[in-house]
Amino acid sequence: MRARDLLADFPTVTLDTAVIDAARLLADQDLPGLIVVDDSGLPASILPGTQVLRLAVPGYCQDDPALARVVDEAHADALLASMTGRTVREALPTRARELPVTDSQATALELAALMARTHSPLVAIVDGDRLLGAVTLQALMDGLLAQ
Amino acid sequence: MRARDLLADFPTVTLDTAVIDAARLLADQDLPGLIVVDDSGLPASILPGTQVLRLAVPGYCQDDPALARVVDEAHADALLASMTGRTVREALPTRARELPVTDSQATALELAALMARTHSPLVAIVDGDRLLGAVTLQALMDGLLAQ
Repeated sequence: MRARDLLADFPTVTLDTAVIDAARLLADQDLPGLIVVDDSGLPASILPGTQVLRLAVPGYCQDDPALARVVDEAHADALLASMTGRTVREALPTRARELPVTDSQATALELAALMARTHSPLVAIVDGDRLLGAVTLQALMDGLLAQ
Repeated sequence: MRARDLLADFPTVTLDTAVIDAARLLADQDLPGLIVVDDSGLPASILPGTQVLRLAVPGYCQDDPALARVVDEAHADALLASMTGRTVREALPTRARELPVTDSQATALELAALMARTHSPLVAIVDGDRLLGAVTLQALMDGLLAQ
């Protein structure tokens, strides 16, 4: 079982997509994450769902549970406001990290290790200069358990 | 909008559940993760889907992409074998880390920050000594976008 047996088409967003539209795509299609492509159509970043959410959380609240608690419920609107005004490009982490991207020859074990290591329930599959689709955690689990 | 408005019942596993059964539960119900409860019914751990997968990946492959690549496809069976013989207790990380657990008064902002920080698309909601359920990333996103 290789990535080519498990991959499927997957929606993409671009660096210029508004964060609010990216969030709506994730929610409406119940996606485990998003593939962000650059001008050439190749993955610039892969955002697990939890990290799409991070785009919406003001920085001063991300690492301070007490602060997030005292912000009262009216301020939940701040989350939406934070998503509305920004593009994915502005919200991406600046720190480089390993992207969950591999090719169609990747083994099931390789896909599993990559998802576990990058905390991503989504791996983009690229062959040469073309994005073929993605393998989701769900597809990998189903493939493994069907054996 | 608070956790009490967003929470729903959520399946649990125990420390003695076989990893293979935990994986089947995740796959069959398309869950974003699992709540592991202790003898008192309270969360001992929360496992995002990608970390359930980690339970199945041999340690020597987790951090070495090249090694996972050379293991040929026949050895994908090793993933299943690794899951079949072990319980969740044996497979949990030994390193303590912040659990995505909060109470029903948590604000949307607090839930979002907790999910982002712990990389968990699932937050267990506990009041006093009782597990009330969980808020999923999907429920939180739907709640925010419906405002």
